[in-house]
Amino acid sequence: MRVEEFLKQKGIEVGDYVRIIKVEDGEKVEYEGIVMPPYELSEGDTVVIKLDNGYNIGIAIEKIQEINVIEKAKAKPEVHFKAELEPRKELPTITILGTGGTIASRIDYETGAVYPAFTAEELAKAVPEIFEIANIKPKLLFNIFSEDMKPKHWIEIAHETAKALNSGNEGVVIAHGTDTMGYTAAALSFMLRNLTKPVVLVGAQRSSDRPSSDAAMNLICATRMAVSDAAEVMVVMHGETSDTYCLAHRGTKVRKMHTSRRDAFRSINDIPIAKIWSDGKIEFLRDDYRKRSEGEVWVDDKLEEKVALVKVYPGMSAELIDFLVDKGYKGIVIEGTGLGHTPSDLIPSIKRAVDEGVAVCMTSQCLYGRVNLNVYATGRKLLKAGVIPCEDMLPETAYVKLMWVLGHTNDLREAKKMMLTNYAGEITPYTKPNTFLI
Amino acid sequence: MRVEEFLKQKGIEVGDYVRIIKVEDGEKVEYEGIVMPPYELSEGDTVVIKLDNGYNIGIAIEKIQEINVIEKAKAKPEVHFKAELEPRKELPTITILGTGGTIASRIDYETGAVYPAFTAEELAKAVPEIFEIANIKPKLLFNIFSEDMKPKHWIEIAHETAKALNSGNEGVVIAHGTDTMGYTAAALSFMLRNLTKPVVLVGAQRSSDRPSSDAAMNLICATRMAVSDAAEVMVVMHGETSDTYCLAHRGTKVRKMHTSRRDAFRSINDIPIAKIWSDGKIEFLRDDYRKRSEGEVWVDDKLEEKVALVKVYPGMSAELIDFLVDKGYKGIVIEGTGLGHTPSDLIPSIKRAVDEGVAVCMTSQCLYGRVNLNVYATGRKLLKAGVIPCEDMLPETAYVKLMWVLGHTNDLREAKKMMLTNYAGEITPYTKPNTFLI
Ligand SMILES: N[C@@H](CC(=O)O)C(=O)O
Ligand SMILES: N[C@@H](CC(=O)O)C(=O)O
Repeated sequence: MRVEEFLKQKGIEVGDYVRIIKVEDGEKVEYEGIVMPPYELSEGDTVVIKLDNGYNIGIAIEKIQEINVIEKAKAKPEVHFKAELEPRKELPTITILGTGGTIASRIDYETGAVYPAFTAEELAKAVPEIFEIANIKPKLLFNIFSEDMKPKHWIEIAHETAKALNSGNEGVVIAHGTDTMGYTAAALSFMLRNLTKPVVLVGAQRSSDRPSSDAAMNLICATRMAVSDAAEVMVVMHGETSDTYCLAHRGTKVRKMHTSRRDAFRSINDIPIAKIWSDGKIEFLRDDYRKRSEGEVWVDDKLEEKVALVKVYPGMSAELIDFLVDKGYKGIVIEGTGLGHTPSDLIPSIKRAVDEGVAVCMTSQCLYGRVNLNVYATGRKLLKAGVIPCEDMLPETAYVKLMWVLGHTNDLREAKKMMLTNYAGEITPYTKPNTFLI
Repeated sequence: MRVEEFLKQKGIEVGDYVRIIKVEDGEKVEYEGIVMPPYELSEGDTVVIKLDNGYNIGIAIEKIQEINVIEKAKAKPEVHFKAELEPRKELPTITILGTGGTIASRIDYETGAVYPAFTAEELAKAVPEIFEIANIKPKLLFNIFSEDMKPKHWIEIAHETAKALNSGNEGVVIAHGTDTMGYTAAALSFMLRNLTKPVVLVGAQRSSDRPSSDAAMNLICATRMAVSDAAEVMVVMHGETSDTYCLAHRGTKVRKMHTSRRDAFRSINDIPIAKIWSDGKIEFLRDDYRKRSEGEVWVDDKLEEKVALVKVYPGMSAELIDFLVDKGYKGIVIEGTGLGHTPSDLIPSIKRAVDEGVAVCMTSQCLYGRVNLNVYATGRKLLKAGVIPCEDMLPETAYVKLMWVLGHTNDLREAKKMMLTNYAGEITPYTKPNTFLI
């Protein structure tokens, strides 16, 4: 039986809060949640409910022993609230760019579609506090999950950001999916040159229709950082699971380290730039950040897209490296083991890549720490083959940087020089204490 | 000028402790350290010295302004100590298998070669404390850096381990390089069936000729765990940078998280099994570990080697997946973004892979947390394409497990069932508190 029919028979509508008793292998399990619209993708015989913890679960109709309505669906709430959007002279103005992801979305319980909540009114309704911090100019660039971000999107975001910064905004907030926010942050860090104002990426690990959503607090903290004096590309997300503070991480040193926790984003090999407390206070954790200044921001958006990021592992075949060279890749970032090693039997293929003009860079799958190709024989052989050791750069940052570097030069010596030049804090020149697993 | 000649002229011998003043771009820099033998790989015009911090540095002869001997090389110490190797009846007996890596090596200052310090006498000389804990039977299996470990080495180690356990040893310690110790630990966890005694992998982040070496304490703690009642495959390494305690991590949940720190190894999504304090006390941190028991251990060593581990990233081309399928790979473990996503434009290639019988498994490059393909549309599409979500398994563990699973079945339904069966604690059924970044 198809789910629509099943629900109709039982007198249940999408949006109703129900209790389901499911029987499987003789065992009864009880679920409570909101009935979701049938997914386009489901086979049509599964009732999907949204549990109180926010996750969706699908239950096959044939296993449902009982289904009862606990509460009928509320009429869809109308947007009654009309924000006062007259700019207030005493406040700075920022632009919020929407790109998609959880932070910019709500689920429409009638259609099941995730839609962008991104008019100024919607924003105000969701997070009115931000209008106390700044005049907000929202702009929806696109609405995609961040796993679908491509270099062309980075470029579009960079240009829109520069345009906003060069036309009277004090800062820019970019609402973005969390999956690849670190990659985009790194890309903007290299592409936005002469950055004189804050650029803040923000996302949410839980959508705003979930009670535990981090969307509102993250957006408030991001807005505060966008009017601060830190002229950096930053990621602002929860610093703890509770709502005590957010952290502003440098865009080249940040990584999503947990699939679902609100405090998933972490600075790697570096300390965050600032803590933004929930009472609004910004506590800078260091003073060596770029300060707000005057001057036009410009975009250096030349990217070479034929670059690959390759994690190595025991048993890996050299044919994977050969394939990239054969396919005309111009750069390969290796995520090596330990201090930056690969199985020795990959080295001839790596040497061939370099000999054919491919820039091969080394990072570590340990993530924390610095590569050093001088300690072991394997490292020295890799150096001799022409591999560029990327200091303590994140593999993801090195990947984005190599695209950008190879957008500027094909010369391997020049590429090496650029890879080892610190453009946006991607290299910490010496290892700092208290930057491991915090 | 070649380095041999240069040193001869200056009256300097390999092993001398020297001070070098180097001039570059008009700046003087001073180095002190032990003169190392010229590397086979160096161009021949570089003096290599080992600094006090243990790292080697090469200095081009032409940049050396001054070089002076501070202390002449000592005569190479002879092994005078002769360990009492008569077995003591009151002590349990264990086998220590040597496989290579830093822990089993010293640098010969005359030849520059890294050689295994692995006769019983050598071991006793280096770490006599272990003979107070157990009667030690050492056996050198091979001497390679762990970046060169292959599945065939895992199989050899597994058989030697089982042989030792089934012939009167109370436990086995495996000295191993740190780079890929996590992969080997996972492989042994799946291959050693009916494990009734402890199997402990141990390594060192600093070689034993460095003052800060962790080799001795790690080996002592590993020996203690090998005579404990935990019948698990474990990794024992420093738990802190200081010498207070080591941690015993479950072999399927452990990862090298730092390139150089002594406390680089961490349990991910799980708590370690035990703390081994430097005074010898073992503090178990949980009681749900496998207990020592009777019975023969056996080796299930069927591995399918045509498996790849692939980390995805924005801008990745689907041709990389197609290539693996074209090359006859039987399994692919994806390190996805966030809850377990890939760029949508990879999904057709992933679907094709599954349609052609390739087992495609999903893990997360966040490392911490659990994949969940039910939350977002991308995840649901991947599920529909036939991707197997690997719960909270480490990507490296899922890779090794998939090789082992596909050694047993080609049937995708069966492979999925096996991937989701918990064979060696590789899946934590529910998320535990205090397992993030500790
Ligand atoms: N998969 C989503 C998750 C999120 O928005 O946080 C994305 O990255 O767009
Ligand atoms: N690269 C070496 C490092 C070590 O031994 O710790 C190895 O893994 O063998």
